[in-house]
Amino acid sequence: MKDISFFFNPKSIAVIGASPTSGKLSNVVLKSLKEGYKGEIYPVNPKYDSIDELKCYQRAGDIKKAIDVAIVIVPSNAVLQALDDVVNAKAKGAIVVSAGFKETDSKGADMEKAIQDIAVNKGLRIIGPNCMGLYDSFSGVDTFFIPRERLERPGKGGLSIVSQSGSFALSIMDTLAMEGIGVARIVNYGNRADVSESDLLEFFADDEDTKVVAVYIEAVEDGRRFVDAAKRCSDKKPVIAIKVGKYEAGAKAAKSHTGAIAGRYEIYRAAFKKAGVREVSGYDDFLDACRVFSMQRYANGKKVFIVTDGGGIGVSIADSCISAGLRLAELPEDTKTNLSKKLPSFCSIGNPTDLTGSVTDDDYKIALDSGLKYSDIAIVAALWGPPQLTDKLVYNIKEVSERLNKPVIICSAGGRYAMEKKKLFEASGLPVFLTPEGAVRAAGLLINSKMIK
Amino acid sequence: MKDISFFFNPKSIAVIGASPTSGKLSNVVLKSLKEGYKGEIYPVNPKYDSIDELKCYQRAGDIKKAIDVAIVIVPSNAVLQALDDVVNAKAKGAIVVSAGFKETDSKGADMEKAIQDIAVNKGLRIIGPNCMGLYDSFSGVDTFFIPRERLERPGKGGLSIVSQSGSFALSIMDTLAMEGIGVARIVNYGNRADVSESDLLEFFADDEDTKVVAVYIEAVEDGRRFVDAAKRCSDKKPVIAIKVGKYEAGAKAAKSHTGAIAGRYEIYRAAFKKAGVREVSGYDDFLDACRVFSMQRYANGKKVFIVTDGGGIGVSIADSCISAGLRLAELPEDTKTNLSKKLPSFCSIGNPTDLTGSVTDDDYKIALDSGLKYSDIAIVAALWGPPQLTDKLVYNIKEVSERLNKPVIICSAGGRYAMEKKKLFEASGLPVFLTPEGAVRAAGLLINSKMIK
Repeated sequence: MKDISFFFNPKSIAVIGASPTSGKLSNVVLKSLKEGYKGEIYPVNPKYDSIDELKCYQRAGDIKKAIDVAIVIVPSNAVLQALDDVVNAKAKGAIVVSAGFKETDSKGADMEKAIQDIAVNKGLRIIGPNCMGLYDSFSGVDTFFIPRERLERPGKGGLSIVSQSGSFALSIMDTLAMEGIGVARIVNYGNRADVSESDLLEFFADDEDTKVVAVYIEAVEDGRRFVDAAKRCSDKKPVIAIKVGKYEAGAKAAKSHTGAIAGRYEIYRAAFKKAGVREVSGYDDFLDACRVFSMQRYANGKKVFIVTDGGGIGVSIADSCISAGLRLAELPEDTKTNLSKKLPSFCSIGNPTDLTGSVTDDDYKIALDSGLKYSDIAIVAALWGPPQLTDKLVYNIKEVSERLNKPVIICSAGGRYAMEKKKLFEASGLPVFLTPEGAVRAAGLLINSKMIK
Repeated sequence: MKDISFFFNPKSIAVIGASPTSGKLSNVVLKSLKEGYKGEIYPVNPKYDSIDELKCYQRAGDIKKAIDVAIVIVPSNAVLQALDDVVNAKAKGAIVVSAGFKETDSKGADMEKAIQDIAVNKGLRIIGPNCMGLYDSFSGVDTFFIPRERLERPGKGGLSIVSQSGSFALSIMDTLAMEGIGVARIVNYGNRADVSESDLLEFFADDEDTKVVAVYIEAVEDGRRFVDAAKRCSDKKPVIAIKVGKYEAGAKAAKSHTGAIAGRYEIYRAAFKKAGVREVSGYDDFLDACRVFSMQRYANGKKVFIVTDGGGIGVSIADSCISAGLRLAELPEDTKTNLSKKLPSFCSIGNPTDLTGSVTDDDYKIALDSGLKYSDIAIVAALWGPPQLTDKLVYNIKEVSERLNKPVIICSAGGRYAMEKKKLFEASGLPVFLTPEGAVRAAGLLINSKMIK
C-alpha cells in the first residue's frame, strides 16, 4: 500500500472548490488553513482570480507546482472531474469532503465506485468522500468545515483519533478542546472509498507525535488487516476502541434480529482482544480513556491505594474497585502504626485512608507516600472543602507519583472551585475524574493485563 | 415520633459556640444565616457580648425567647453540656455539627449514647452529630460550614437530598449549583444519633416544596421502617437512591468476605424495589437522576423515538436503548412517506431519524412531531455544528413536548458552544445529557414500570 504520511505534513495544499463566500464550507476550510497551516495554499475555482489575497487557479492542472494534498469540496457530481484534474496535476492524495455518494442513492454509489477506481488505478490516496477529513494540530491541516465559534480546536498533544463517524469526531474534538486535552491528529474518513482505519493505524504505529490512539468504529472492512494493523500499533502504544452499531436492530430500525448481530459484535470483541486493543463501551469511557492515556503511564499491577478527605467518596471508590475486579492494596501493620503516629488522630488509616476535613497538604503527601509503596496505582479523592488545602497539594501528589514512578489518578467531584483546581492537576499531568466510577474506570484502563506478570 | 418539620422553617435559631473569628466553622455558619435566613438569630458564646452586630448570649438559657433550632458547634466534650442548656431553653431541636463521637473512639461512642438519651428522654430532636446538617434554599437555614468561595449553594428547586455521607452531600451540592439545578433541602445527618433517613423521608413525603427525593445510603438502621417511609414517599413523588459500601471488603479493608456482604446488598436492592425506590449505581447516575426528575415527568411507556443531526450519535443512542431494555418506536409506513415528503431528501427517515448537518430548526420540529406521536418519550441528539440551527430549536422542541404532553430528553455532546445552548435547553425544562449513555439512562429513569400497563 502506498504511503499516507504526506497527508499529515503536506508541503502544499490545493483547495478544489474554494470560495470567498463567508459561511461556505470551502471558505471555512480556507480560513482555517490560512490561520494554522504554514505550507503553500492554492485555491482552485474557475469563477475567481483570487480569494482572500491568494491567487486562485482555474483548475488543479494550472498550478504547475507540486501538490501534496488536494481538498475537494465541490458538488458530488463534480467530484470525479475534480479528481481527474488532481491526478493530472500529480497530487499525492485528496481529501474528498463532499457528500452525496453511497450514503445517498445508487447513482451516488456508482460515483463512489469510480472514486475507488481512481485510487486503485491512478495511485491517488483518497480520504473520504463524505467526511470531515483531517485536523492536525502539528501541521495545521484542518478540513473540519465547522467554524471555530461553533467547534473549538484542541491544542497540541499526544492523542490521535480515528473516527468513522463525523458527528462523533466533532463532539469529541469540541469536548477535548474545552477540557484542555491536546491531540496530534483527528481523522474522520467517512465512506472509506480508499484510506481506511487500517491504513491510519499503520501510520499511527510509527507516528512519533502520536502516543495513544483512540478509534471509533461502526464496521471494519477487512477484519484480518485491521487486527494486524491494530496489533502493530498496540505493541508500541495504547490503542483504545469503541464499537457502535452493536445491534442492527438499534442501528437500522426497530426490527429485531439481534441474535445474529450480537454474534457479530462478539467477533469485534475477539478481534480487539487479539489485537491488544482496549475496548471502551461508551462516550464517557472513551473520553476518560483519552484523558488518562494522554497523561499517565501503565501501572505494573492491579493493587490500588485510595486516599481521601471525604469518607463517603472513599467508600464509593472502594466499592467501584471491587466491582471492576481491581484489588485494594493491603498496608503492612507497621506501616499503619507508623502512619497513625505521623497523621492526626482523627484520621482513619487503612485502604481507603480517610484524612477527614481537617486534612493538610502534607497529610496527603505522608499518606500517599506510604500507601503507594505497597500498591501499583493510587486514586486520590481530594475534595476541596477542607480549609487548609492549598495548591501545594497538587505539587505534593505529583512529587510522590514521580519519585515512586507510579501512576496517580485524581477524583475530585464538585463545582466551580473544584473545576479550577482540576486545571491545575491536569496541567501537571495528573488526570482528574469527577466521579468515583470514572476514576476507577481510568485506573482499570491503566492496568494492562499484558504488562502484568 | 415527634415532628421534625420545624427544622425546615424555624422562626428562630441559636448558634451555640458562635465565633467572630473569620474562617471558624461557627463563623461560616453565622455568616450564611445572616445572609439567607430571615428569622431570629441568637449567637451563644460566654466569651462575647456581641458578634457581627448580633447580641451574644452566655448560654442558651439566657435567650428567654422561643428557640426552634439550636445549631451546636462546640468541641465534642462540650456538646452534652450545650445540649442540656438547649433542652432547658425549651428548643425543639438541635443540629449537632461537632465531630468526635462514635466515629472516633469509645469515649466518643459513650458521649454519643448520652446524646441519644437526651433525644429519647427529653424529646429534643437531634440531627447529627458529626454532620454538615441542613441546607434549605427556601428558609435560608444553612449549617454547611464550608465558605461559599469553596462550596457554591444551589438555587431554589424541587429536589431534596438525604445523604448519610457529608462528602457526598458537599460534592453533589457544589455540582448542582454549578449545573444550575435547584434544590429544596439537602440534609446530611452524619452519625444519626436521632433523626434518620426514615424520619426525613416521612417529612419529604408531605413536603410540598419537594417534588423528587434523592437518597445516599451507607447503611439503614431500621429496615422495616425505612421501607415504609420510602414507600409512603415514592407513592407521592419519585424517590431515587444510591447505596454505597456494597462490599465490606471495599469499605473496610482488603479482606474478602464478599460473599456474605453481597448478600446483604441484595437485601437493600429488594428493599428499594419493595419501596418503589429507583436505585442508581454511581455518582454520575445519581446526578443524571437529579437532573431528569427536576425537569421532566414520567413517560407512559417504554417506546423511544430518536432524532439527530449526527448519524453516529444516533446509532450510539439506539445501541444504548437496546442494551438498556428500552424499545425503539416503529413509525408507520405512511408517516415515513409523509415525513420524506416534508423533509429534505438527504435525511434518513426512521428510528433514529438523521436530519444530517443541513438540518434546520423546523426540520427538527417536523420530525419530532411525527416521531413522538408514535412513542412515549423522545431523545433529541442535537449537535450544534449545523450552521442553520438557532436558539429557535429549543423553543420548537419544547413546544412539541408540551403539546403532545410527552417527555423529551436532549443529548448534546460537545464543547463551549454546546454548553451555552445546554443552559438554554435546561432553562426551558429540557434536561441535557452530554453522552448517549447518559441520555438513555435518563430516559430509562422516566420509564416507571409501576405506571406502565
